[in-house]
Amino acid sequence: MVKSAIGIDLGGTNLKGIVMDRDGKGRHLTRVPTEADRGGGQVLKNILALIEKLLAQEGSAGRIVGIGIGTPGFVSRDGVIAGAENLPGWKGTQVYKSVRERFGINVVAANDVTVMALAEAQYGAGRGVANMVCYALGTGIGGGIVIDHKLYAGTHGMAGELGHVPVEPGGIPCNCGQIGCVERYASATGIVNMAKAMASPAKGAAVSAFVKAVRANPDAITSKIVYEFVAKGDSIACAAHERSCEMLARAIGMAISTLSPDRVVLGGGVMMAGQVIIDTVKKFLPRYTMREMLEKCDIVAAELGEDAGVIGAAAMAFEKFDSPKEQNI
Amino acid sequence: MVKSAIGIDLGGTNLKGIVMDRDGKGRHLTRVPTEADRGGGQVLKNILALIEKLLAQEGSAGRIVGIGIGTPGFVSRDGVIAGAENLPGWKGTQVYKSVRERFGINVVAANDVTVMALAEAQYGAGRGVANMVCYALGTGIGGGIVIDHKLYAGTHGMAGELGHVPVEPGGIPCNCGQIGCVERYASATGIVNMAKAMASPAKGAAVSAFVKAVRANPDAITSKIVYEFVAKGDSIACAAHERSCEMLARAIGMAISTLSPDRVVLGGGVMMAGQVIIDTVKKFLPRYTMREMLEKCDIVAAELGEDAGVIGAAAMAFEKFDSPKEQNI
Repeated sequence: MVKSAIGIDLGGTNLKGIVMDRDGKGRHLTRVPTEADRGGGQVLKNILALIEKLLAQEGSAGRIVGIGIGTPGFVSRDGVIAGAENLPGWKGTQVYKSVRERFGINVVAANDVTVMALAEAQYGAGRGVANMVCYALGTGIGGGIVIDHKLYAGTHGMAGELGHVPVEPGGIPCNCGQIGCVERYASATGIVNMAKAMASPAKGAAVSAFVKAVRANPDAITSKIVYEFVAKGDSIACAAHERSCEMLARAIGMAISTLSPDRVVLGGGVMMAGQVIIDTVKKFLPRYTMREMLEKCDIVAAELGEDAGVIGAAAMAFEKFDSPKEQNI
Repeated sequence: MVKSAIGIDLGGTNLKGIVMDRDGKGRHLTRVPTEADRGGGQVLKNILALIEKLLAQEGSAGRIVGIGIGTPGFVSRDGVIAGAENLPGWKGTQVYKSVRERFGINVVAANDVTVMALAEAQYGAGRGVANMVCYALGTGIGGGIVIDHKLYAGTHGMAGELGHVPVEPGGIPCNCGQIGCVERYASATGIVNMAKAMASPAKGAAVSAFVKAVRANPDAITSKIVYEFVAKGDSIACAAHERSCEMLARAIGMAISTLSPDRVVLGGGVMMAGQVIIDTVKKFLPRYTMREMLEKCDIVAAELGEDAGVIGAAAMAFEKFDSPKEQNI
């Protein structure tokens, strides 16, 4: 019998679920509202309902080896959520107990970006390499580490906070309490804030087309818009892009000197801008890491897009509850 | 039959060798000159002669599962040395072939600090924890990473260059080509150079006892002397110490946010100063890492001293050629 796993991706707006075979082929992709504003209890209810729906479509739980859940924040060994500051009430929720009691199926949860890294490692841009580091450049920056083809989450499930590595002493204060975290420069929020600051007349910026767009409607500026102006060669937008990529190169450089990965994968919404980010990061990297390790490391864009979350969550369930190694025992 | 492994520690001045049982009990500890100035061929000859001597004392190679060698630089999968700039001619040497041909025994080599980290993990300050990061604060700074009780060296044997993580953009240029590496501030060399610079009248330093010592004989200043003045509360020596520890805290903070280790172990000659370094690093760490991970991580001094090299090298041979897992297969 072909075995399958359920993957759940918990986002701020939507919950997504899938049933996936080991070869990465998914079915029954379903999206329901997270309803984060209604608190952690409601979010958990919605997850249970989504699993129920997937099992109903599947017809039977017989071939399901486990359920994987990707979530913002950290997950303790026994399934309690920590962090996840953007989902009110979700912190402190015990996830494993309810799922196990309701369905009698094994469940494992981990940070959503860690899970995305596993998806890219096994089915996307990291296929075929043993050691990989992944950055998700979104509203914030998340990180995921894959060592010897497996997720590395540390003893307490918290490893890979690659967005909160300080890269600029005396730089922009971060919500996390540190100063100059790479997230403040290279996340969507970071790029937009930097570009707006650079466009401010108080900074003596020349009035480029981007500056005019900022003045016309500052609240409408997104990282996508910044990168539209980068594509047109706008001087201010390009300056923000260069600074963002230099800061990202500092963070990636540290990860390379530490872990000497075979590949660094860049994903998340900001990467819609694509190759221009890869190219600019690569330009700065030789300043910020050891040459020998950089030569052995590819810097590439993620391949799986927004489905990486559900794919990685299902892959994690396979890894945890049906690994080839365990089958041999 | 009790199995044993040979551990060889290759230093700039001396070669050390030991025969060790799995419980960490060593015998026949032998020290011979490295003769690095006579080139890589001579160093290899001396290693072979040292192994020969250890086997002669042992009486038989029958219980030896393998030979482990800790060396400066990196070691490729097939046993060729890279880096190791301080040992002329050693770079490019093929180590495995000669040892295997001469003795017919399995051999594995790795970076000396990586190997020291394994020793501390299995027999020293890291006993009982799964994930550990180790810093050797010597002439330079080396790093070692232990993940899930095993050495992590990356696909190409180069991981853990924790001394060459930049912590001060625009800071002191490093031999490695980067700017502001932590090695420039927190190695013995780094502390001494910083303390001397701070003692320079051009910097407007008050004439403390340490400043007088520097003026009397600048070439005699070592990190040990700097820390003797730190113990006496000398203002300039203390300022250098504080800056050194703050820079080290920046580097350790990044490692914690990335790997969320259970323990960070500080070793090497500089750590003769002991608890004052641990205490000062701990004081700065909350500024430079994620609180949740810091709370789960101990910062401690290494326990094995200068024998960590041979112990770790032998432990690596056990890990590679006689792991409990392989015995079960």
